[in-house]
Amino acid sequence: MAVQTIDDLPTPALILDRAVLRRNLKRMSQRLHEAGVALRPHLKTAKSVTIGRMAVEGHDGRITVSTLAEARYFAEGGFKDILYGVGVVPSKLAAVTGLRRQGINLRIVTDNLAVARAIASEARNGDTFSVFVEIDSGGGRAGLPYPELPGLLDIARVLHEAPNVELAGVMTHAGHSYHESTSEGIARVAEQERQAIVGAAEKLRAAGIPCPIVSGGSTPTAVHSRNFDGITEMRPGVYVFNDLDQEFIGSCGADDLALSVLASVIGHYPHRNQLLIDAGALALSKDISAQEFQPKVGYGTIAGAPVKDMAVIACSQEHGFVGADSPLPYESLPVGSRVRIWPNHACITAAAYDRYYVVDSEVDGGRSVVDIYDRINGW
Amino acid sequence: MAVQTIDDLPTPALILDRAVLRRNLKRMSQRLHEAGVALRPHLKTAKSVTIGRMAVEGHDGRITVSTLAEARYFAEGGFKDILYGVGVVPSKLAAVTGLRRQGINLRIVTDNLAVARAIASEARNGDTFSVFVEIDSGGGRAGLPYPELPGLLDIARVLHEAPNVELAGVMTHAGHSYHESTSEGIARVAEQERQAIVGAAEKLRAAGIPCPIVSGGSTPTAVHSRNFDGITEMRPGVYVFNDLDQEFIGSCGADDLALSVLASVIGHYPHRNQLLIDAGALALSKDISAQEFQPKVGYGTIAGAPVKDMAVIACSQEHGFVGADSPLPYESLPVGSRVRIWPNHACITAAAYDRYYVVDSEVDGGRSVVDIYDRINGW
Repeated sequence: MAVQTIDDLPTPALILDRAVLRRNLKRMSQRLHEAGVALRPHLKTAKSVTIGRMAVEGHDGRITVSTLAEARYFAEGGFKDILYGVGVVPSKLAAVTGLRRQGINLRIVTDNLAVARAIASEARNGDTFSVFVEIDSGGGRAGLPYPELPGLLDIARVLHEAPNVELAGVMTHAGHSYHESTSEGIARVAEQERQAIVGAAEKLRAAGIPCPIVSGGSTPTAVHSRNFDGITEMRPGVYVFNDLDQEFIGSCGADDLALSVLASVIGHYPHRNQLLIDAGALALSKDISAQEFQPKVGYGTIAGAPVKDMAVIACSQEHGFVGADSPLPYESLPVGSRVRIWPNHACITAAAYDRYYVVDSEVDGGRSVVDIYDRINGW
Repeated sequence: MAVQTIDDLPTPALILDRAVLRRNLKRMSQRLHEAGVALRPHLKTAKSVTIGRMAVEGHDGRITVSTLAEARYFAEGGFKDILYGVGVVPSKLAAVTGLRRQGINLRIVTDNLAVARAIASEARNGDTFSVFVEIDSGGGRAGLPYPELPGLLDIARVLHEAPNVELAGVMTHAGHSYHESTSEGIARVAEQERQAIVGAAEKLRAAGIPCPIVSGGSTPTAVHSRNFDGITEMRPGVYVFNDLDQEFIGSCGADDLALSVLASVIGHYPHRNQLLIDAGALALSKDISAQEFQPKVGYGTIAGAPVKDMAVIACSQEHGFVGADSPLPYESLPVGSRVRIWPNHACITAAAYDRYYVVDSEVDGGRSVVDIYDRINGW
């Protein structure tokens, strides 16, 4: 690749700082090594084989994905132990067996008795399955709610007793950790997560049903948990990049944001103290999760902004409206100049792009494009 | 293509009802024919050559796009008169001339004197440009604000006097029409839009500067305007599909929604009167614009819902949380069954997909997939 700087890139573009990425990966890898817990990174954030390989370095290579398109892509990239972490439905089992017949241990998830029966029925044809039962540890998304765990034993028995089906274990995602903003608060959620998932595993074992894998995880709980006892693996995802939301809840520091959107200033509107950039609703996404903690971040903040609270305050499809509390520095940001925007939620913003332009802040301040990593999108 | 029904499609998937699309296209086409105004559809919504061709049927083929990727794609698809409707910056002029040298009249937009000078300077090399000056008719996005029109004559003179540069005219987008919800309110905005753009054209002509094209347009103002005098073309976009937002502001009726997202039910959570579907923040987008008028639409409503106010009330990346005011009909929606979701904002939702699965409600109620149209995404 010819030497290229970020000034040569078309805008909007997705910029990944490899130095920050490596630090983020190393920190989580070490933390889970020290905790004695396997790392099964959730690659729904990165959606990149290159980043996936870096993430599992020093670990056994197990990963999590959120779509069948990701499962196929990472299987092609050489990953062998893949958990498809969204509740499966019978119509998707053919795609699952397609990959399993190629030697990929694509594991699936359910919390539903009818689906468990459909899996058991499908397995009678000779196809094998590896299935997790999903537990709701308090986040209120998917899973059997703890402590009631309604139907857990019925579902587990159907799977455990079916020929060719392995009950892999139990899994949960403590999504409510995203709404805590202190280490104590997140640690409390992490303990809920642990109790729920370990409690579910113990309930299975007490009934004579093996439960080899006890899978928890979110970035905040992986970072702040004070006790992993009984958990065998964690599935953090957004830690690879981090974002404003993770910074505000304390999963990372302000220097740990690896992902930004590069945009061009396309217009000056001093009569309303705004400027426009060519990154709008599609380039940034309309995710405003970080506003829960700091409303002034809008749709993303301007990296290295010369004035306070300079952020994308509104978006239309391809226009981002940049405002600030004090007068905007128009002279230092002429039309055609470039800005970098820190996204609210890296997973959602990244999904609009088919590639990362990789820079390295430890090499030359992040000026040169040192690599391009592709991404898988869609379903 | 083998005969396929929507029950055979992987989920989530983007479903386009061709019968509704055709009605929407015909209605706008006739309206602008009757008004004696050229139609330059904004294909940022459809991003599809097939739909673009249908949209300009009976018109002269001029179109609008929102990205250079769209410009290249529609140029390859045979379109010759393309307005890139987002303020250009100098670094994008090379891409513009690249297409213009291939015989594509790719027209550009600015509201900035420095950019006008950069265009004039670039044109001295022998490349030609066709440039619109953007006017802010009250929406407060891009453009010189009317009635002050600060710098209009300076910008126009730089362009008009430069060799190889055509000042194509003036253009505006009355985005504030999206926040009116009565025909009267939208008609009032449409008249503001008309006065601003015609006023800018007259100011140019009074100064001896020709202004051949006077370009207005948004779907609401195109539908509700009562006077097009002086306007030569309109650039509506979302009318091709319509969506909940357009329905609520009265740009279309409830039967005019052409686009929906097909999703599978992936879990039942009766303890909180919710179910989950496999269409979340990426499949639906986090656009909640229609909530301005009906907060209970969430991230999209369930088509043909058997209970009132059944909608996607929350989203994580690949999970949509469906709720309702009354108990959900779990028996008629088992895990694995399918629902269709009407999006808040068709332009943003569609951007997650690389194709439309086309059905036709006038043929068999929309059951069979009768075609697949591709889409261009990214930049």
